[in-house]
Amino acid sequence: MNSNLSIACCPPLLEGRLTSSDASYLASIFRVLGEPARLQILSLIAAQPSQEVYACELVETLGISQPTVSHHLKVLYEAGLVTKERRGTSIFYRILPERLAMLREALS
Amino acid sequence: MNSNLSIACCPPLLEGRLTSSDASYLASIFRVLGEPARLQILSLIAAQPSQEVYACELVETLGISQPTVSHHLKVLYEAGLVTKERRGTSIFYRILPERLAMLREALS
Repeated sequence: MNSNLSIACCPPLLEGRLTSSDASYLASIFRVLGEPARLQILSLIAAQPSQEVYACELVETLGISQPTVSHHLKVLYEAGLVTKERRGTSIFYRILPERLAMLREALS
Repeated sequence: MNSNLSIACCPPLLEGRLTSSDASYLASIFRVLGEPARLQILSLIAAQPSQEVYACELVETLGISQPTVSHHLKVLYEAGLVTKERRGTSIFYRILPERLAMLREALS
């Protein structure tokens, strides 16, 4: 998975029987969200007026070590939940709202 | 957690910084959904004309062992994602749509 993959996923959970592969894919995204620090990272990004953060800001704000923050950002990126953009020596992360919309749709 | 607890949970993920306890609670529900068989169980329940199943139907349809199905149903019940009702010797399970609505709200 990465953020370049198609956003389209699965039929809504309540509107028909999920195939095994749809269920595996969807479950893999939910597992990414099943970690409190990742949810806090997403909500922190969304709370920024600029709608973006760079990793060091998260280290300071969440009080989590830099390697742990980097790991969570990598997982969020690979799941297509955030995008990243290098500017100078910093990498800025933004939420990919389409992926959250896909999950909302899947839960309907 | 169980289905008798309040459905209200957390502010939307993208509308403010999640508290640590909200993030932990929400992550615990996403972890429950992070298992393909549980998603298939939910979609199978929703696909029934009666909107309910009893455990033996799931064993037959999903081809998962009875102890595994029982375990997943227990986890779904404790997360408040399904309700259960004993009738005679069978226990019938139904989806609690309010909990899915809460998750959709949290992802907005």
